[in-house]
Amino acid sequence: MNDPLWFAEDGSKNLIIQYRCLRTVYSGRSRYARIDIVDTAEYGRMLFLDGIAQSAEEDEFIYHESLVHPAMLLHPKPRSVCIIGGAEGATIREVAKYQDVNRVVMVDIDEELVKVCKQHLNSWSNGAYEDPRLQLHIGDGRKFLEQTDETFDVIMVDLNDPTEDSPAIYLFTQEFYQLVHQRLGKEGIGCFQGTDLQPTRLKLHARIYNTISSVFPWVTSYPYMLPSFHCLHSFILASKGKEPNFLDLGHALQARNFKLKYLTPPFLQTLFHMPAYVEQAYVENQEVITDAKPSLYSS
Amino acid sequence: MNDPLWFAEDGSKNLIIQYRCLRTVYSGRSRYARIDIVDTAEYGRMLFLDGIAQSAEEDEFIYHESLVHPAMLLHPKPRSVCIIGGAEGATIREVAKYQDVNRVVMVDIDEELVKVCKQHLNSWSNGAYEDPRLQLHIGDGRKFLEQTDETFDVIMVDLNDPTEDSPAIYLFTQEFYQLVHQRLGKEGIGCFQGTDLQPTRLKLHARIYNTISSVFPWVTSYPYMLPSFHCLHSFILASKGKEPNFLDLGHALQARNFKLKYLTPPFLQTLFHMPAYVEQAYVENQEVITDAKPSLYSS
Amino acid sequence: MNDPLWFAEDGSKNLIIQYRCLRTVYSGRSRYARIDIVDTAEYGRMLFLDGIAQSAEEDEFIYHESLVHPAMLLHPKPRSVCIIGGAEGATIREVAKYQDVNRVVMVDIDEELVKVCKQHLNSWSNGAYEDPRLQLHIGDGRKFLEQTDETFDVIMVDLNDPTEDSPAIYLFTQEFYQLVHQRLGKEGIGCFQGTDLQPTRLKLHARIYNTISSVFPWVTSYPYMLPSFHCLHSFILASKGKEPNFLDLGHALQARNFKLKYLTPPFLQTLFHMPAYVEQAYVENQEVITDAKPSLYSS
Amino acid sequence: MNDPLWFAEDGSKNLIIQYRCLRTVYSGRSRYARIDIVDTAEYGRMLFLDGIAQSAEEDEFIYHESLVHPAMLLHPKPRSVCIIGGAEGATIREVAKYQDVNRVVMVDIDEELVKVCKQHLNSWSNGAYEDPRLQLHIGDGRKFLEQTDETFDVIMVDLNDPTEDSPAIYLFTQEFYQLVHQRLGKEGIGCFQGTDLQPTRLKLHARIYNTISSVFPWVTSYPYMLPSFHCLHSFILASKGKEPNFLDLGHALQARNFKLKYLTPPFLQTLFHMPAYVEQAYVENQEVITDAKPSLYSS
Repeated sequence: MNDPLWFAEDGSKNLIIQYRCLRTVYSGRSRYARIDIVDTAEYGRMLFLDGIAQSAEEDEFIYHESLVHPAMLLHPKPRSVCIIGGAEGATIREVAKYQDVNRVVMVDIDEELVKVCKQHLNSWSNGAYEDPRLQLHIGDGRKFLEQTDETFDVIMVDLNDPTEDSPAIYLFTQEFYQLVHQRLGKEGIGCFQGTDLQPTRLKLHARIYNTISSVFPWVTSYPYMLPSFHCLHSFILASKGKEPNFLDLGHALQARNFKLKYLTPPFLQTLFHMPAYVEQAYVENQEVITDAKPSLYSS
Repeated sequence: MNDPLWFAEDGSKNLIIQYRCLRTVYSGRSRYARIDIVDTAEYGRMLFLDGIAQSAEEDEFIYHESLVHPAMLLHPKPRSVCIIGGAEGATIREVAKYQDVNRVVMVDIDEELVKVCKQHLNSWSNGAYEDPRLQLHIGDGRKFLEQTDETFDVIMVDLNDPTEDSPAIYLFTQEFYQLVHQRLGKEGIGCFQGTDLQPTRLKLHARIYNTISSVFPWVTSYPYMLPSFHCLHSFILASKGKEPNFLDLGHALQARNFKLKYLTPPFLQTLFHMPAYVEQAYVENQEVITDAKPSLYSS
Repeated sequence: MNDPLWFAEDGSKNLIIQYRCLRTVYSGRSRYARIDIVDTAEYGRMLFLDGIAQSAEEDEFIYHESLVHPAMLLHPKPRSVCIIGGAEGATIREVAKYQDVNRVVMVDIDEELVKVCKQHLNSWSNGAYEDPRLQLHIGDGRKFLEQTDETFDVIMVDLNDPTEDSPAIYLFTQEFYQLVHQRLGKEGIGCFQGTDLQPTRLKLHARIYNTISSVFPWVTSYPYMLPSFHCLHSFILASKGKEPNFLDLGHALQARNFKLKYLTPPFLQTLFHMPAYVEQAYVENQEVITDAKPSLYSS
Repeated sequence: MNDPLWFAEDGSKNLIIQYRCLRTVYSGRSRYARIDIVDTAEYGRMLFLDGIAQSAEEDEFIYHESLVHPAMLLHPKPRSVCIIGGAEGATIREVAKYQDVNRVVMVDIDEELVKVCKQHLNSWSNGAYEDPRLQLHIGDGRKFLEQTDETFDVIMVDLNDPTEDSPAIYLFTQEFYQLVHQRLGKEGIGCFQGTDLQPTRLKLHARIYNTISSVFPWVTSYPYMLPSFHCLHSFILASKGKEPNFLDLGHALQARNFKLKYLTPPFLQTLFHMPAYVEQAYVENQEVITDAKPSLYSS
């Protein structure tokens, strides 16, 4: 018989996704979230925070290659990288492929989560937590950027959705994006979580896009599709410098000679176009998100 | 309280997706499938065949624009179109936007399904079933192509997955694709269902791609992402003629001046690249699908 | 394939029961509750109020025979009966079997529910709504008893659980039971909903029992088990008169010559004993429920 | 947030019961079954075999007191007891309360299951596995009875339902009951699993009852209701000797002075009556179950 244990994720209050579990690996609560790691039959090992899927063994490469490489390749010469969030360790794994990077600062608020991921999600970090270039800082990402004097070539924000009780809410506001702008070097690149692109709930994505656009001279959004997320999702790239040439991106990836499973040079250089309904949402939802008026993810 | 009725879709034997139902609209069995139409809270009205989601009110435009326009715009001057399947009526709705098309033959095997869709999925067909250019033929699509002498500029195959009991199995074989090739005019374009692109089950998609490539001189696959399908999916385009220039596609769409919700000219002209893991699957799964050795969809 | 539609009942916040649905018969909201009638594969047609099972075609006889006959047979000569609640119509169906009863007053607060049950639950009422002895009064059962001067031989309270928003809360208090006591004739019998007997939540049942015991000279509780309720449940009988002899009950049933599906004379006369853990709960939960301090059902 | 892990039990093919899990304790496969032990929020720790609930911490006392005490108390002087099945260890726990019993043979086919229960279901066996009077025999219960020369005062059959692949099928046939009859002493008592009493599937219970009645001079069935079984269930008592007086049973329990949580003397002595619909099923399903024609449990 098949395993009778199921992990039930509320995709929204009107959609439940049930994953057949082969075994539960870890369940606990950190200061910030309930953490579950389970081995699912469909997507391999999965990490859930507060019951929401964060990463799955079989397709996390799509998320992490999408987050890291466009930003890294867009910068002419990335040497220092700051990652806000990213406890799974796969973001640093992808960044570590850049041998000319000499400093990676990762700031995650959830010490327990980092510990649990190190222990149970080995294939995510693949040794990157031991990389001597990495400095791991446990703390609030926004506070870290406020208090440091350092500037970075690339800053990546690898967060979950800004839901009601999430510590992430104030990392989706104009004030936060201004802070990232300040802490980026002259040709600095930011890459931000853009939430999902379901046609019925585009308001938040569009507002994030417009808020970042109110801070950076050049911004683009791009989609990625993760089977284990059950929806089209997005990242938003921002450059302090001049508008990039996407053809260069393809060449830059080619030159790097990485072994990637998701991005290819032609796929990468044509990644930065959104469907019409998303473009339309940008026009219709121009309200800027501020600390005084944060915007929540409401599934 | 929220509605306590749920429609449970087996995404696979290890994944269940439950849609909260506002009301059931129709349930019945045709000769070929169990048909359910329900109003879901998440995606609006949905059509399920044998319990598998086929189309949802809120995002069907993504599927139907993806299926129709690349093929139509790739042909220099489409006048006659044949659609195999497509009972919902949204494929003919998109084709009907081409005023220079003067003949549309739609062949669907399931008369009951067509009737039910006409009655309950109005927003899908949006009047297209009454278009005088349409000739609706109830019958087996393959048999129709075998028996007709007619040739078409564009042939689109709008089918569900080739699962075990589906009448669609023999519409995913080399013999079938050869038949489509025969029934296409000189510069004819075919567009085919490519099944889903979940990294853990790429074999069928890759074989379909390679099978079509064994018949047509020029073939490309492209992805689309439907929230209500919970996975990246694909179509496969094939041309009897010379290799197309995708930049021309963007211009062609621009010139048409359609009101589309999914495709924009830049989005369309950069649509035709696949992730690395899909390209890799093409190399690894070269077996051609034949009538003697059909390939089934196994979730 | 099997029907993919499921009705999900929250047995508690930690237990979900999913019934496969053959079809939905009615869904709507009255002033007091959401009403769903569905044809389930497991128990036939079922009525749910606010998502909680009230009655199932295949086993409602267990509930209704258990509610009606002990009370009716305990009274030496029942002529007039008052039923609070009972919209399904099966309580009046069982009462109507007593040909010497000449007056049945049924008081239900939910006019819409009564209408829907009359239309869709024919096999429950089986014509009893047309019995000339029946007077149907739409209104609050407690108010009705406060305002009438009439007395009854038997008063039955056929209600759902006193959950937070239920109009039934004040029909489970000492003041209400005193009112029933007043409106009963000299040898009058009351029969009351006793909620479920799950070992982990006996407090409410025990308090109801003790509250009724604080009002009536003689009280007994008895269990019934309904597959569609998934738990042992109870009624509580109270007599204004002298302690009854249960052996007489068996003889009285024998003499009536009814065709019952649940009760037999020997089964009936041995019905009135509770498991030890229930008796123990009576000792441990002596708090009387009053209007000032109502007690809620908390699953 | 609440725990998002659920154990899904197929109550039948049309009914799913989902238990919220606090943690999984053990999952594995023995030679005979898949074994799961999980801590549920609703019923405490639970044991499932092949996904079907066998026992729950919060209400197993109902099952085990019901199985053991009627049989033990019916025998005038039980000294030796044989238990077929009973891996949880709660049957021997109840038997161990009889200090004048000097020999208990327990025969369970599933060594792995016994081991797992000893380790994880301590509150079930409560030390009884260490009782010096116990002889644990791993092997097929029927074969054991065939090969032994010993006779017992009481033989209890503590098995799961005779489903298709269960080794229990041939422990529900006339040949098996004859064997039990042979291995019982002069006034010996047998107690047998009677399966559930859901009105829609009484055939198997009635056949078991009639089959046992074809072997023993005196037989009675009696119900028990376990919340975690979601249905009324039954045991069947059989005596080689004369018809017992149930009033004596109450006195016998009184005299023992056990601390029981389910049975009381008055409850026990009135336990042995079945609802009318069960009595009716005995009349309608007289077919005797034999090795040549076994009867399966079909939910």
